[in-house]
Amino acid sequence: MKPSLPQGTRDFAAETLRKRQFILDTIREVFELYGFEPLETPAMENLETLMGKYGEEGDKLIFKILNNGLDNPAKKEAAQKGFEKILAGKNEKNITERALRYDLTIPFARYVSINYGKLIMPFKRYQVQPVWRADRPQKGRYREFYQCDADVAGTRSLISDAEFAVIYLQVFKKLKIGVDVKINSRKILAALAEICGGADRMIPITIAIDKLDKTGMEKVKAELSQINLSGNQVSVIESYLQITGSNDEKLGKLGILLGNAENAKSGIEELRSILAYIKESGSQSEMGEVTIDFALARGLDYYTGIIYEVKARKVVMGSIGGGGRYDDLTGLFGLPGIPGVGISFGVDRIYDVMSELNVFPEEINKAPTVLFFNLGENESKLVFKEMQLLRNNGISCEIFYENAKMEKQFKYASKKNIPFVAIIGSNELQQRTCVIRNLIKGEQEIIPVENILSYFKK
Amino acid sequence: MKPSLPQGTRDFAAETLRKRQFILDTIREVFELYGFEPLETPAMENLETLMGKYGEEGDKLIFKILNNGLDNPAKKEAAQKGFEKILAGKNEKNITERALRYDLTIPFARYVSINYGKLIMPFKRYQVQPVWRADRPQKGRYREFYQCDADVAGTRSLISDAEFAVIYLQVFKKLKIGVDVKINSRKILAALAEICGGADRMIPITIAIDKLDKTGMEKVKAELSQINLSGNQVSVIESYLQITGSNDEKLGKLGILLGNAENAKSGIEELRSILAYIKESGSQSEMGEVTIDFALARGLDYYTGIIYEVKARKVVMGSIGGGGRYDDLTGLFGLPGIPGVGISFGVDRIYDVMSELNVFPEEINKAPTVLFFNLGENESKLVFKEMQLLRNNGISCEIFYENAKMEKQFKYASKKNIPFVAIIGSNELQQRTCVIRNLIKGEQEIIPVENILSYFKK
Repeated sequence: MKPSLPQGTRDFAAETLRKRQFILDTIREVFELYGFEPLETPAMENLETLMGKYGEEGDKLIFKILNNGLDNPAKKEAAQKGFEKILAGKNEKNITERALRYDLTIPFARYVSINYGKLIMPFKRYQVQPVWRADRPQKGRYREFYQCDADVAGTRSLISDAEFAVIYLQVFKKLKIGVDVKINSRKILAALAEICGGADRMIPITIAIDKLDKTGMEKVKAELSQINLSGNQVSVIESYLQITGSNDEKLGKLGILLGNAENAKSGIEELRSILAYIKESGSQSEMGEVTIDFALARGLDYYTGIIYEVKARKVVMGSIGGGGRYDDLTGLFGLPGIPGVGISFGVDRIYDVMSELNVFPEEINKAPTVLFFNLGENESKLVFKEMQLLRNNGISCEIFYENAKMEKQFKYASKKNIPFVAIIGSNELQQRTCVIRNLIKGEQEIIPVENILSYFKK
Repeated sequence: MKPSLPQGTRDFAAETLRKRQFILDTIREVFELYGFEPLETPAMENLETLMGKYGEEGDKLIFKILNNGLDNPAKKEAAQKGFEKILAGKNEKNITERALRYDLTIPFARYVSINYGKLIMPFKRYQVQPVWRADRPQKGRYREFYQCDADVAGTRSLISDAEFAVIYLQVFKKLKIGVDVKINSRKILAALAEICGGADRMIPITIAIDKLDKTGMEKVKAELSQINLSGNQVSVIESYLQITGSNDEKLGKLGILLGNAENAKSGIEELRSILAYIKESGSQSEMGEVTIDFALARGLDYYTGIIYEVKARKVVMGSIGGGGRYDDLTGLFGLPGIPGVGISFGVDRIYDVMSELNVFPEEINKAPTVLFFNLGENESKLVFKEMQLLRNNGISCEIFYENAKMEKQFKYASKKNIPFVAIIGSNELQQRTCVIRNLIKGEQEIIPVENILSYFKK
């Protein structure tokens, strides 16, 4: 039997893994600098925790786990009935009670609901774990991928909104990716909808606006007409989308366009305040700026305040981060009134951007420092002693396991990118010396065995 | 709806997570010192990759994933037939094609089989990932838990066998757990079986021997009689289990007891050689020694050479590590003749042992260094600037999000174990000063704002 991997999943070998680890560690480190605490939740959640949270399409993409012991005769009848329900597209506890994590937000909400009262509020958590989605696999879309989220639950403070933009700036500066952190406010979009046909039009309007980047203005206008907006309303939206200038200028022009609406006033004031904090932080630079983008809508309808999206400069790629403020994190779990704000990093895309920009630091591909050749049992015993000295001092090394031809041992070192080989043969054993060859420089020297540690320590 | 966690699974909050992370990072760091490379495989494997690899009981504990789209009318008939097979205790592709990783060894074997030819052999990999088992949950037994493995595939060299014992010693020394690394050889057990009734008795004999620790000699002897060993044979096994002394003495006595058997000679010679390497490494200390334990059997029948088991001293607890040498890693996947050796760390038990011994280093519970109080918008803007300076210099800090009563802000700092608070009110804003209070010492001083960074840098 020739084995294979499930569609849409990947093995991660050392090189890829170290690069991904570098990204995750960088993000984690920044989260910690801002006082966020790590959380990990189980891969499995109860099915009822997940169902109904991601819309009808989302529900279908949840991986469900088959109950064990379905062949138990005592449960056979219930299982038989259960299967009929499954075939009818329903869920059934007798067949499946658990499912794989689909994102990190619902498990976070579930965690806050269960532990509220014990948590220090506002609760600042970050979470870096894989999620699973039964999406059709395609280029850049996998069935298992890492999400990397930070959220604050339990505050409406705009300081927290500002801080997340600053976190984005600091992370991407550390990763050497030039970015634009785009922000907008759902309150402004709500005001736009109110003016253009009513608050209930907000979702279809934002869906249309969201496509501006991809399809252009004419198609957006056509879509707006199709949802029965009047010519006047469409042209207000067109003006809205055509607002340009600095952040201040944009907010000024928007005030004139939508100024009478309560939501618009509040959204504008909030963005002004958030931008003032960001400016004070001094974290904007040639590597990244925060800019208002009124076309930014973000599909998820649970956002209620600021929304973020991060685009890499110089690389054609979808957004590499996104998030926003929501009013009610845990209401679905019986704990209403907990507002929050959070962001997410698109780890796979960040990986691709960094590969394209070639900005992974070289030192992350750490091969062992030195390969000791194996030239016999007595020689290897001395090597064993010397290796332990090195390892106790944090210097990585290995011995070639077999007493093979020198050529083979050299090849192993070079394939594994090991920069030094250390050779102790019978002569060296007698003289208590060691030949050290620097494979990068092609240089070689002979040193006393007792100097091996100091040689590599420098 | 009040949410809950699936049985046998756990959330990991910051404190626990940081401790577990410390264990995993320590082990990873040591693996790297020995030239092992990281690998990660997907949580899901094809069902056929996993089935039949863990024995009948193991198969039942594999979590299977329900195929998506079973309500698709085009597939209904096949699904209906499939369900019947599931109810009969069989697997059926139309219902479930994928399953959750049950251990790290089979995915490793699957990886080697797929990638053989591209891999640098011998291939040294380590892997630290969760696995899932549908075991009945009980104290210390979970349905999701981390495994932490290292293996070398593609060599019969005893140097690699010795190295794993040394890795155990180094890891547990770093973790400050005193241990005995017990070793034995399956060849010796094979020889014992040959002498006591035939090679085909090896499994039942090892199963009986394995219980010596728990049940005592009399019960072991009774079990051996029950599998129809003669009184003479039982007494050979009794003598075998009663061998005591130093490692050298034990091997000497064993040679006398089983010396004629080919397997015994070979096993004894191998253990001697392995022990000689370990001795040369100088890695045995008062924190850990490698000792021969002839009662050590390890249930898994794929081991063929050395076997290891690690017991913590001073704590009553099952083994905290184990492993061994196997002849054929990938034969089941159509690639015969790849021998290997590997070890595993029991992360949950190590966590419990370290808690009991109280040996987690204090510094892993890192709260943010300083909480800035929030005393108004203008004050907060200055704070934003200062915080960014600190964060750019790797000093973690946060601001209390709301302009709340001082008492509330103090409470937050103390609950979160933040050692310093920094207070900039309207007076301080005017005078460009900052009150810094050390909550641990109960001391307070006033410094110029421009000295905040240097204050915390020291």
